[in-house]
Amino acid sequence: MKRLSLLGATGSIGHSVAKLLADAPGLFRVEAVAGGKDAKALAEAAQALGARFAALADPAGGRALADALAGTGIESGAGPAAVLEAAAREADVVVSAIVGVAGLAPTVAAFAPGRRIALANKECLVAAGTFFMAEAARLGTEILPVDSEHNAIFQALAAGPRRDVEKVTLTASGGPFRLKGREEIARATPQDALKHPNWSMGAKITIDSATLMNKGLELIEAQHLFGLPAERFEAIVHPESVVHGLVSFIDGSVVAGLAFPDMCVPIAHCLGLPDRIATTCRRLDLVALGRLTFEAPDADRFPALRLARAAMEAGGAVSTTLNAANEVAVAAFLQGRIGLYGITDAVAATLDRINGGPAPASVAEALDMDAAARRATEALLPKFAAKAS
Amino acid sequence: MKRLSLLGATGSIGHSVAKLLADAPGLFRVEAVAGGKDAKALAEAAQALGARFAALADPAGGRALADALAGTGIESGAGPAAVLEAAAREADVVVSAIVGVAGLAPTVAAFAPGRRIALANKECLVAAGTFFMAEAARLGTEILPVDSEHNAIFQALAAGPRRDVEKVTLTASGGPFRLKGREEIARATPQDALKHPNWSMGAKITIDSATLMNKGLELIEAQHLFGLPAERFEAIVHPESVVHGLVSFIDGSVVAGLAFPDMCVPIAHCLGLPDRIATTCRRLDLVALGRLTFEAPDADRFPALRLARAAMEAGGAVSTTLNAANEVAVAAFLQGRIGLYGITDAVAATLDRINGGPAPASVAEALDMDAAARRATEALLPKFAAKAS
Repeated sequence: MKRLSLLGATGSIGHSVAKLLADAPGLFRVEAVAGGKDAKALAEAAQALGARFAALADPAGGRALADALAGTGIESGAGPAAVLEAAAREADVVVSAIVGVAGLAPTVAAFAPGRRIALANKECLVAAGTFFMAEAARLGTEILPVDSEHNAIFQALAAGPRRDVEKVTLTASGGPFRLKGREEIARATPQDALKHPNWSMGAKITIDSATLMNKGLELIEAQHLFGLPAERFEAIVHPESVVHGLVSFIDGSVVAGLAFPDMCVPIAHCLGLPDRIATTCRRLDLVALGRLTFEAPDADRFPALRLARAAMEAGGAVSTTLNAANEVAVAAFLQGRIGLYGITDAVAATLDRINGGPAPASVAEALDMDAAARRATEALLPKFAAKAS
Repeated sequence: MKRLSLLGATGSIGHSVAKLLADAPGLFRVEAVAGGKDAKALAEAAQALGARFAALADPAGGRALADALAGTGIESGAGPAAVLEAAAREADVVVSAIVGVAGLAPTVAAFAPGRRIALANKECLVAAGTFFMAEAARLGTEILPVDSEHNAIFQALAAGPRRDVEKVTLTASGGPFRLKGREEIARATPQDALKHPNWSMGAKITIDSATLMNKGLELIEAQHLFGLPAERFEAIVHPESVVHGLVSFIDGSVVAGLAFPDMCVPIAHCLGLPDRIATTCRRLDLVALGRLTFEAPDADRFPALRLARAAMEAGGAVSTTLNAANEVAVAAFLQGRIGLYGITDAVAATLDRINGGPAPASVAEALDMDAAARRATEALLPKFAAKAS
């Protein structure tokens, strides 16, 4: 029986993990769960999963968590140290699904020889990828990507040696503005941008899908995960979102990862390794679908792709800054403070303001750079307010 | 440097191999080449490839071959024993590209511990698959599929354990009659049937593509190659022929092999293993292609699929008979003796006439069964002559 810990038990990935475990009785034993602020939801998850330990990031919720778990035999703790303890406990696989830079320290705390990390947190790679991957390698921890694109590529990469990879392709749905002109995109409201065609996700990532910054961040993630030069990565638009990623080899062969667009599948793949677990995830039916389409992405209408590409080529701390600036700018867009193109304008202005410098060499350095970038973007936002519709 | 022998050096696969070797100087040394009847073409191939030994199947061409190679330092021989010698010579990889059941004995003669066989001959698997795969396993020889569909599946299977495979899908272009009704297909002439939309191939396999018997035979091949139950294999129609095969795993993941439709790619893959070789094979460009479509195959208009499925489920000698009967019937169709549906009618009648029995347990048994089936089909053909247009 595999021992599993789940960091981010109360979010969407956490729920998918819980469903998979319920469908695969006897395969996993849950050691620890961690959540953010919702003591009640975390207590419910801990009980449903039969966890031994539950950690809430918010210290103020510690008492409520302990009360909710009274008599269950499940230990609990609250505050950052408790989350780190949950991460570090003995486990074969740790699912890292805490959202944002808050996920970085606990994920690194989970590194241990022979352990697998099913990584759903983007910031570990975008904000601190160089340090993160080096530290995982140093400690003998394998990083498994949960994101559907990276998971597809991870699966496809089994077909040949890494050195023989000519190109790695991530697909993008194209988002709600795929067929819209620049002017219409410029006038888009948060409501317009939140209508994602294929995936049901949180607000931040849905806006990132609308600007294609999500794909830009994923290109950066892929570069760290798979350790190939920036120019070997590309993104193409594939509105049906069933071919998630492709690996082209130097002999002309292309191996692709496909699945019905549901996080059920990549999560199951990560939990099953080195084998696979039987799931009830919805199956892909190409005949029912009938056709798949592919287009080139348009970096003029979606400048986030150009910003991300520049960050990949520059390396160092640029993507740490880009990620933080984007998060602040997306929040400002959702608040109606700036227009959709204000997001990439603010990110570009922040990158102009903050010199790149070397990549953060520790969690603390990454968090410091992240905070500095957020302050810089906040200060720059008024410049772009006029551009809101 | 890898030592390579090429059985079937003067055909289409042989030419593709020669081109790949020319593009990869210093990677391969050619030990032996074998051809059928064309002494001049074989001598040219032997010289171009720098082979040490050339064997012609036709004993009558031995003198012409020896004369053509006089002074080159290349040894030569003629007749079946010479071809077996070419097959058995020391090599790391042997390309088996002799057409028809004539390829069976030389391919088995090439089996040796640690050797890889790049298999382009269908009959080894369709006529004698059970024996062929068991013998390869017994001798520690790995069979690598050159056919684009099986090669794609072979590459995709690297993504997970064989026991976790839920479904293996081969794609079919659908052939020239994909959009035609039954009556139009019944009236088709050899000229109509020889117009294949995507691949340039020999007449026999092009007719097999028009009846979808080619896909039926490939399903049987796949069953032997990959050792999974018959019901886990399916064929779907994909007119663009760029997704060649797909493997669906029990967790819902699907891994697919794609390539521009050119035998260059799967041959290069087989020759490169366990690495990959850099090629100038034309690259797949999904954006330029724009869209891929998928349809269910229609076993009413294409009864070959039903015959092949029944052969897979029956096992034993049924596919040996089916293959031989089909070859005779296709030749009769090309001669205008029967109509297109006469092919599957004659195959079905032959299968009714000859009891299945156990699978051939040796090359000799397979050849005997093959010959018996051919005689039976020949005798039955007049019954279907009336149906020719």
